[in-house]
Amino acid sequence: MQIMINEIKNWMKEAAELIKKEIAKNEMTVDTKNGRRDLVTNVDQKVQDFLIEQISAFDPDAKILAEENGRDHLTDFSGRVFIIDPIDGTLNFVLERENFCIMIGVYEQGQGKLGFIYNVMEDLLLWGGKEIGVFINEENLKAPDDLSLKDGLVGMNSSMYRKNSYNAQVMAEHSMGVRMSGCAGLELIGLLRGERSAYVSSLAPWDYAAGNAMLEAFGMKVSNINGRPLKFDGREHFIAATPKAYEKMMALVEEAKDEN
Amino acid sequence: MQIMINEIKNWMKEAAELIKKEIAKNEMTVDTKNGRRDLVTNVDQKVQDFLIEQISAFDPDAKILAEENGRDHLTDFSGRVFIIDPIDGTLNFVLERENFCIMIGVYEQGQGKLGFIYNVMEDLLLWGGKEIGVFINEENLKAPDDLSLKDGLVGMNSSMYRKNSYNAQVMAEHSMGVRMSGCAGLELIGLLRGERSAYVSSLAPWDYAAGNAMLEAFGMKVSNINGRPLKFDGREHFIAATPKAYEKMMALVEEAKDEN
Repeated sequence: MQIMINEIKNWMKEAAELIKKEIAKNEMTVDTKNGRRDLVTNVDQKVQDFLIEQISAFDPDAKILAEENGRDHLTDFSGRVFIIDPIDGTLNFVLERENFCIMIGVYEQGQGKLGFIYNVMEDLLLWGGKEIGVFINEENLKAPDDLSLKDGLVGMNSSMYRKNSYNAQVMAEHSMGVRMSGCAGLELIGLLRGERSAYVSSLAPWDYAAGNAMLEAFGMKVSNINGRPLKFDGREHFIAATPKAYEKMMALVEEAKDEN
Repeated sequence: MQIMINEIKNWMKEAAELIKKEIAKNEMTVDTKNGRRDLVTNVDQKVQDFLIEQISAFDPDAKILAEENGRDHLTDFSGRVFIIDPIDGTLNFVLERENFCIMIGVYEQGQGKLGFIYNVMEDLLLWGGKEIGVFINEENLKAPDDLSLKDGLVGMNSSMYRKNSYNAQVMAEHSMGVRMSGCAGLELIGLLRGERSAYVSSLAPWDYAAGNAMLEAFGMKVSNINGRPLKFDGREHFIAATPKAYEKMMALVEEAKDEN
């Protein structure tokens, strides 16, 4: 596993250099996918192609699930699967040139084995899994406290908050406040570092695969908003939280159902 | 003016060292002010005391308006006034140990002369004013493009967004998306760097004084949400935006009034 870990880290560092060069060149082409705020750039595609090339050379039998270029669907999760988001937070990448991540999750027989989330512009790499623990760059990361909902910040999807979906506004009211960064990777890093008690959003597999593998290593709770296992297929309402915050939030989800 | 600029930068760097030492010591005491989410720590107070000491030694005649320790009200803005937020984003400081700023605004006869916003943990200092332009650390910062509301991100107060105050949700709908960082300084830095088209919140003078002085240098629009000049007294609904985004947003504020 150590060889694979080193390989993946090297790919991510190379991909980050590629991204920084593209930012410096400033010739990005931006297209929309499903709606005017759902962006993809030539850089997303280039980074994904690069990562897929590396993976295929390293492990030709591995399956790949990835955000761009029609690689976004997979039915067979047997064997080893790499789940890739070449640029998580593309809108931030385009408009801020920061606050975006590269993410890679490695799954075996459908189980999260390893996760890698790389905050490119801050050069901050979180990586690890159940068997090895979680690291921040080369330092061992201690599991965060089991923060209560009321004692922590909640990463929140703006649309779910606005519509009060699943009592999202009530969750926020019980917490110390909501944060919206526009980047799942950053929110998941926040959870892993104890800077969030929870994260609620609408996510696709490449948004949560890497984080999920690491959160499990810390005994954090991750599921869809109805408490069922994530489907790894298409977008769904997602919750990740400390055990204490999760329990409280799921009770609020139930209350929202009773009211409807 | 150069002497004063150098002095202020030195104070801020020293204050940042003080903050980092306190974070390392990890013996912070946290109190609440107006409600459980309105925090103040011994570090906020210590930093403010340090800054006031420096200001008083440098310019004994200057007036001071500051967030903590009962210095939060001033009626006479004649002469030189220093407006201080020792730690902007105290909740982030306590829960994240990052994403907070030190802010100092220098006003003369009620006019913004100089602003300083220091993102402590990223060591990023934005400073400047109408007469000298705006700098990021020692580099001259170019005025950002006049982004339309529809082409940029909007920094947004969570409570105003939830309640749709002044059509805040409609503003968001017209934009590329909302961001909530919990730190006015970070949002104002975002505006100055062209990473935001607007920022809408409920702010006190120490939250906006430094940013206001720099935004004016770039020809950006800053006012209360009704289009009137900021009062520099107490909390009020605040808007800062590119000229194009401002015009569109003020039209949406008017529409909200018509509907009520």
